Amino acid sequence: MSLDASAAASLGTVRVVGTGLLGTSIALGLRACGVRVVLADPSPTALALARDVGAGEIDDGSVVADLVVVAAPPDVTAGVVAGELAARPGATVTDVASVKTGIVDALAAAGADLDRYVGGHPMAGRERSGPIAARADLFLGRPWVVCPAPRSQQPRVDAVRALVRALGATPMTLTPEAHDAAVAVVSHVPQVAASLVAARLREAPDTAVALAGQGLRDVTRIAGSDATLWAQILAANAEPVLGVLQQLHDDLGRVIRALTALTGTGPDDGARAALARLVEDGRAGRERIPGKHGAAPTPFEVVTVLLPDRPGQMARLFSDIGDAGINVEEFSLEHSPGQPVGLAGIWVLPAVREDLDRALTE
Amino acid sequence: MSLDASAAASLGTVRVVGTGLLGTSIALGLRACGVRVVLADPSPTALALARDVGAGEIDDGSVVADLVVVAAPPDVTAGVVAGELAARPGATVTDVASVKTGIVDALAAAGADLDRYVGGHPMAGRERSGPIAARADLFLGRPWVVCPAPRSQQPRVDAVRALVRALGATPMTLTPEAHDAAVAVVSHVPQVAASLVAARLREAPDTAVALAGQGLRDVTRIAGSDATLWAQILAANAEPVLGVLQQLHDDLGRVIRALTALTGTGPDDGARAALARLVEDGRAGRERIPGKHGAAPTPFEVVTVLLPDRPGQMARLFSDIGDAGINVEEFSLEHSPGQPVGLAGIWVLPAVREDLDRALTE
Repeated sequence: MSLDASAAASLGTVRVVGTGLLGTSIALGLRACGVRVVLADPSPTALALARDVGAGEIDDGSVVADLVVVAAPPDVTAGVVAGELAARPGATVTDVASVKTGIVDALAAAGADLDRYVGGHPMAGRERSGPIAARADLFLGRPWVVCPAPRSQQPRVDAVRALVRALGATPMTLTPEAHDAAVAVVSHVPQVAASLVAARLREAPDTAVALAGQGLRDVTRIAGSDATLWAQILAANAEPVLGVLQQLHDDLGRVIRALTALTGTGPDDGARAALARLVEDGRAGRERIPGKHGAAPTPFEVVTVLLPDRPGQMARLFSDIGDAGINVEEFSLEHSPGQPVGLAGIWVLPAVREDLDRALTE
Repeated sequence: MSLDASAAASLGTVRVVGTGLLGTSIALGLRACGVRVVLADPSPTALALARDVGAGEIDDGSVVADLVVVAAPPDVTAGVVAGELAARPGATVTDVASVKTGIVDALAAAGADLDRYVGGHPMAGRERSGPIAARADLFLGRPWVVCPAPRSQQPRVDAVRALVRALGATPMTLTPEAHDAAVAVVSHVPQVAASLVAARLREAPDTAVALAGQGLRDVTRIAGSDATLWAQILAANAEPVLGVLQQLHDDLGRVIRALTALTGTGPDDGARAALARLVEDGRAGRERIPGKHGAAPTPFEVVTVLLPDRPGQMARLFSDIGDAGINVEEFSLEHSPGQPVGLAGIWVLPAVREDLDRALTE
């Protein structure tokens, strides 16, 4: 798996509008495939930075682009896409916004040429932002949803799928509606839940947060996200998110009624069953998340190892594991409160669990 | 940090009641410190297994224990503790149940000798269960809350703290009420939230769950927990959990009202601000979680590396990092859908970020 220059060969000249992290990363990947890339951004600084890191030429208006990639903030994407469709009559236009239906609706309302528009959404992490953080390999191995509009021409869809493959990502085709419903349940609602749980920590005493374990860290990891960006995303996908949150609100109401019954003086018939059902339903849902490489989840075994917190310890650990020919499926690293050590969790297939124990003991 | 035989020297003979994962791990750790340990369990199989893995002798009734550790399921802990206090008039009795107030209340109601009882709660992971999964080092580096009852005698508290230190854990003293309020917000409510989010995946189409990213995996990781055990825990800590969940329910109601305003035809004044406030509140709460070693969270920088999915790749990666003298602060490993590679995230202090880039490029 790598950048795919043969897929890139069909793209012609690509114009990237918006040279933040995503736009600049797309441009860098395409440049690495030998594609001619021209850049545009309302910020002259971001534009110059993108050029300086090798993402392409600044578009001087003389270039006719075959494919336009709009990588603008979600709340201005529809307007920018409409402008590009109008200004470049031959070009295919795609975007990278994380919500899709509203863009199609806005383009239709604006009378845009939807034949040439194909939406896109790369599912790539963004711990940092801006053109300096961009990487040609940002999309390698990531899913990238391709969302044809009802009237999208097939050659336009093919061009966007070629773009995705050129960047080493895996194209997945969904309608805009199916995409938005999917990201509501797998991305937007988890973000809301993580924020809700983390918000409850604000007034907790220090002695309480000192007990934070890996569970709390996992549940709230994405709660560190940018508030303005997420307000845009949630507002743009309001209807699907609302649908899932209302069901979650009902489920939470049942939990609250069960706990209320248990704290009161009346009968608490069925309260414990309601609590067990919640956890069981969660377990059933959790099991639907695909395992590595899209396969069914494998029940890995985990071995925990204590590591002194200094350079070279992980190298020694993985060197021992590698020498034994054992493949590590998942890995976690956790630190102990007040102590200079880390706890490493090593997940392996059950069949090699004993080999791992032996390698680590020796 | 390791097992502490000098702390263990003061313990005398220890009786462990309940030879599941926690009880057997405690017994193994104490045996490794040279402590005499006698074992009891209502299941003859679990008891024999614990003895066979070297956790101690089966208690034949002839031994006078100085310290009794009750490691029974949470819903029977109070009864077992009361029985031990009554049957062993000289012994200090502690337990490992994850909720504490109800046990003190039940012991007081039963007229038990609370002078000799000191509650405990080791914050240790439990991916597997049973005596076979037990490890002498299970508690190394973990917080272990020690909860004296109002009448606990100081020498009894000292004995339980010595037990904790002997096992290499970090004792933290809290009242039973403060403990229960703390675990409600850092453990029990996150469990409920993870289950609520995961439960929403049950009816999602395959194409939606195929888009699951690291965020969803993190939020729902603990949703795989045991339903019966968690129904017990939530029921035992109903009042503190209810208090936090009601606040969370109110916050969720505000999000739902904002999204409803955004999907309706009426005015949506303030709706986006309400969404941004939720995410911002979550960010503020998330920042309260201590960083490694209990210090303030450090803004690490992350470098992502693509790894072919075969043995020895992590060894090579960490060997390069270790050779460069760089300490890895956090580490994550993620797999790509449908592709035989992993994406490794390496968190380091900002000061060594450039060194890391150089080490990885070479």
